[in-house]
Amino acid sequence: MIKIALGQFEVQPGRPDLNTEKMLSMIAEAKEKRADIVVFPEMAIPGYLLGDMWEQRAFLEDCEYHGELIIQASINLCIIFGNVAMDWNKRNNDGRVRKYNAFFTAHNGKLLCNPKSPYPFVIKTLQPNYREFDDTRHFYSLQKLSRETSIAIESLLQPIQLNLSKQILNIGCLLCEDGWSDDYSIAPIEVLHHSHPIDLFINISSSPYTLGKNNKRNRVFSKQAQSTSTPLIYVNTTGIQNNGKTLYTFDGSSTVYNTTGDVIAYCEPYKEKLVIVDIDLEKNATPPIKVPEENDIVSIYHALHYGVKKFLRNIHMKKVVIGVSGGIDSAVAAALYTKILGPENILLVNMPSIYNSKTTKDLSYQLAKNLKCNYIIAPIQEVVDYTIKQIQETPITSYITGEQSNLTVSSFAAENIQARDRSARILAGIAASYGGGFTCNANKSETTVGYSTLYGDQSGFLAALADLWKYQVYELADYLNKEIYKQEIIPQATIDIVPSAELSHNQAVDEGNGDPIKYPYHDYLFRSFMEHWNRATPQDILEWYQAGILEDKLGCDPGLVAKYFPTTQEFITDLERWWNLYSGMAIAKRIQAPPILAISRRAYGFDHREAQNGPYYTAKYKKLKSGLLAESLV
Amino acid sequence: MIKIALGQFEVQPGRPDLNTEKMLSMIAEAKEKRADIVVFPEMAIPGYLLGDMWEQRAFLEDCEYHGELIIQASINLCIIFGNVAMDWNKRNNDGRVRKYNAFFTAHNGKLLCNPKSPYPFVIKTLQPNYREFDDTRHFYSLQKLSRETSIAIESLLQPIQLNLSKQILNIGCLLCEDGWSDDYSIAPIEVLHHSHPIDLFINISSSPYTLGKNNKRNRVFSKQAQSTSTPLIYVNTTGIQNNGKTLYTFDGSSTVYNTTGDVIAYCEPYKEKLVIVDIDLEKNATPPIKVPEENDIVSIYHALHYGVKKFLRNIHMKKVVIGVSGGIDSAVAAALYTKILGPENILLVNMPSIYNSKTTKDLSYQLAKNLKCNYIIAPIQEVVDYTIKQIQETPITSYITGEQSNLTVSSFAAENIQARDRSARILAGIAASYGGGFTCNANKSETTVGYSTLYGDQSGFLAALADLWKYQVYELADYLNKEIYKQEIIPQATIDIVPSAELSHNQAVDEGNGDPIKYPYHDYLFRSFMEHWNRATPQDILEWYQAGILEDKLGCDPGLVAKYFPTTQEFITDLERWWNLYSGMAIAKRIQAPPILAISRRAYGFDHREAQNGPYYTAKYKKLKSGLLAESLV
Repeated sequence: MIKIALGQFEVQPGRPDLNTEKMLSMIAEAKEKRADIVVFPEMAIPGYLLGDMWEQRAFLEDCEYHGELIIQASINLCIIFGNVAMDWNKRNNDGRVRKYNAFFTAHNGKLLCNPKSPYPFVIKTLQPNYREFDDTRHFYSLQKLSRETSIAIESLLQPIQLNLSKQILNIGCLLCEDGWSDDYSIAPIEVLHHSHPIDLFINISSSPYTLGKNNKRNRVFSKQAQSTSTPLIYVNTTGIQNNGKTLYTFDGSSTVYNTTGDVIAYCEPYKEKLVIVDIDLEKNATPPIKVPEENDIVSIYHALHYGVKKFLRNIHMKKVVIGVSGGIDSAVAAALYTKILGPENILLVNMPSIYNSKTTKDLSYQLAKNLKCNYIIAPIQEVVDYTIKQIQETPITSYITGEQSNLTVSSFAAENIQARDRSARILAGIAASYGGGFTCNANKSETTVGYSTLYGDQSGFLAALADLWKYQVYELADYLNKEIYKQEIIPQATIDIVPSAELSHNQAVDEGNGDPIKYPYHDYLFRSFMEHWNRATPQDILEWYQAGILEDKLGCDPGLVAKYFPTTQEFITDLERWWNLYSGMAIAKRIQAPPILAISRRAYGFDHREAQNGPYYTAKYKKLKSGLLAESLV
Repeated sequence: MIKIALGQFEVQPGRPDLNTEKMLSMIAEAKEKRADIVVFPEMAIPGYLLGDMWEQRAFLEDCEYHGELIIQASINLCIIFGNVAMDWNKRNNDGRVRKYNAFFTAHNGKLLCNPKSPYPFVIKTLQPNYREFDDTRHFYSLQKLSRETSIAIESLLQPIQLNLSKQILNIGCLLCEDGWSDDYSIAPIEVLHHSHPIDLFINISSSPYTLGKNNKRNRVFSKQAQSTSTPLIYVNTTGIQNNGKTLYTFDGSSTVYNTTGDVIAYCEPYKEKLVIVDIDLEKNATPPIKVPEENDIVSIYHALHYGVKKFLRNIHMKKVVIGVSGGIDSAVAAALYTKILGPENILLVNMPSIYNSKTTKDLSYQLAKNLKCNYIIAPIQEVVDYTIKQIQETPITSYITGEQSNLTVSSFAAENIQARDRSARILAGIAASYGGGFTCNANKSETTVGYSTLYGDQSGFLAALADLWKYQVYELADYLNKEIYKQEIIPQATIDIVPSAELSHNQAVDEGNGDPIKYPYHDYLFRSFMEHWNRATPQDILEWYQAGILEDKLGCDPGLVAKYFPTTQEFITDLERWWNLYSGMAIAKRIQAPPILAISRRAYGFDHREAQNGPYYTAKYKKLKSGLLAESLV
């Protein structure tokens, strides 16, 4: 029996001091509980998503220094932890000092080594460089080291031998992506399994939550344990980390799989807790337990609640201002933030103009009352009128001709003036005086096509809902009412009303007029542009349309395309309208958007690299289009 | 004699259609001029900085299709060009289809191959993944292919044999970074040189301009030609490309080096032109020419002018609105944009409050007159007063207690209200009515520490000057007056006045009060935080301070530290103040900042990855600090 402590804890990115403090206290607890080994996550000391902080020599030295403190604490306890490992005498390909993403095994004050490796630590073999991951920018991989030193990967990838008094343990050491090798030409787990006797695999990870990932990980890792007949321990970090533009929650969910691939221990998601597990290497003595399957809306709410709460703590924000319109997005934001900070720390602001209906004004008020928040009504009409008048009546002098002229404010420009007046004038001003920040309530559908005003409703310190499609916002509203508040906190009428910006008479909700986005179809169309692993473009959409398989490919309800677009021309006009926005003006807006909390497999920001290059239509698309249009005229 | 046409042209990123059209017309010209070979840049067909557009199957097919058109055009002319190359049957490490950054050599309708390679194109060996480069995210390198196929790199890296009627030519094919191998464990040029007879090296590149790079490239490439006694042809693209947050100019500057490393042909920077050069492989018959050394301020102005001009064209912006304060940054922006669009398309807006001096108001007016721009004075005081009153006098109702309360607007909050009123209310409103965008005039010093207001002066469609330190803005002002306009277009008083935001009585310029940033020192301190290849942190700064070498390390004038900070305590307070801002609030602001035009070796944005993690001080820094403070008390 080996007693293993799973050191799942909230890693604070960029804070070796705090992380070391936490690890030392968990180490003390593990010793007290007579554990043989304590396992901490990948990059437990520095944190993982640090931008280019890896280029600060002083920071790297500090990580080494704190790593040394952990090593010294390993008397009578084997401590496994992730840290950046330095070779100060070598260079990375960028000319900066050599850095490895490394797996350290400390025992009785010393690091255990593979005698074939030049270093007393194990180096990550597979370094992800897709999605939000940037490993190759900073860390030198085992594969590169193998080429540089001409030492075969098989020699560099050997188990670490741990000599416990009762037995000798061969540990197969893996770092996160090393366990996700399907698309690489090398599979570390197989190299280890085939070349050496392994008693135990340990995968230390720093793996962000995204929707559906845990279910997949359980399938993949369970299969690895089973096919190698070797127990596998997965330890992941909790907390939040960010890439600037995108904020990730780390759910922990550390898990132990036995030799038949069954789960025998499991840390609750997002919980910081030392879980102790006894592993019997000969026979699977520890009984399996059942890991709950991930439910979409439950896990989305969990991630949102945890992510926003931790982010507010990190930026020392204790109060929040939310503009509420009576619509669904702001209502969901209000319900979420109120649950996190308490109603006494939330100020809801309704900012009516002449275009806001009594219906939505009443719904805002109702929401504030239901949530017991602070509430203020700050109308915008006077300043909006003043602004339009000022722009139209202040003369422009040309110093070429000496002549004077005046500008005219279009109705479209006037809509944006309203949106900016709300956010940049009122919300920002109120937030500064209230001592907090104001939220951006945009959803993912709006964010996709830039259906928002820059410096207006697109502003805020965080866009917590911007990785949720509109249909997910509705699901969340239901979930908040039914499961979290267990009462109709978000008025049903807010859920039922047509979504509208109410910026002009054309968007009157009482007449059923609202957004130009037809969410039941466009949510799915937009998703195909950006979330599909092989991203759809107008060419794909048209091919699917022609083949009659579009709704199936998009995943939306059947019949919608015919309903919304009676003719091919209408279908194509709609497609190009949104494609032009998605790959045009919306990019300019996203560049200046607030940070987004990631939920899906792909959020806007660091995992959706984009250039302001304008929309493109392929030669094949143009041909398809003219063919289809010619056909439809027949 | 081989006649080679250098196809330096303006690659439009994400537009295979337009790029192919341009290449076909240059091919026709090359044939007319009886060239043997025409050489186009790396990624000539798709463009290089495309974000994740590489994940669109339809786009990749389109690149292949257009590449085919170029191959077909190679009758009686060898065409060398860069394109993405596909292997539809293989996968990248992210599971998506296999993509290579490839060098194509087409002759008489066919691709020339290295018989040892599985593909009829040459694959980039070294893929940069530092600075703004993202190659490893999308492209599979020759090194990975070598491992996957077990074909030695030496076999994969062979010259392409071109059979011209008059002679056979062995071409050593290089893609951009392949020629910058100092920090890699493999040097493609040496592998080629040592393993095979090479008649000619051709390096096709897509290499952005940054300050000082051309001088360095001339040293490095000249040495390569000389040490291998082989002519080297470097062809680079012109145009602009962007990573969303950062905009890069590509200056072309294609160059031919002879066997002694001398330059024998050279394309002017930023010029799209087919340059023909005769190369004598046996004897260096073509006489060397002199390439002008790069002058800093000249090349900065050139890059700014070119970059802004092309960006305006790309986003179809023909008119620009600029808020002018009478200060240096907005004056330089006005002079730059006026040169690009003509004064008839520029609207300068002065937005005085009660804090703006007659001095600066007069300077704004003087600037508009000098430039012959359109000019408007739009005061902000009334709405600022209204906003403060509205925030203070509108009651907040608490729905917990039912009580009402009121907010108070602090003087700091009132400063930001002014800044937002100018940008989000007036400039944005005027720009929409004028039919253009408004500029962000921030410099790099302000951007470093977030000395700006979000949704206020930090807003705009482009921050053209945000990669210039304040001292460079002054240099540019001088250069604009003396060399570009050849008259005092920017009033000398604007250059001489103390820089100030004029947002309160404490910032009265006529009393010599202004910004808290002491530019002659802080410009250089901030630069050490972000531009130094090994980035400085408070620990380094304090070590240098203690050793008395700080000014030397930073590169600022000697004596400044003692002048500004008589005591160690003052020095440390100042250091921590700016470090806290740089790694704290300024990151939140930069996340929502406009795109920045890159000039320096490191601009904010895509080449300065950062996470909103808050400031950090290492254990060693804390020790140093307490030691120094204790000492200073003795």
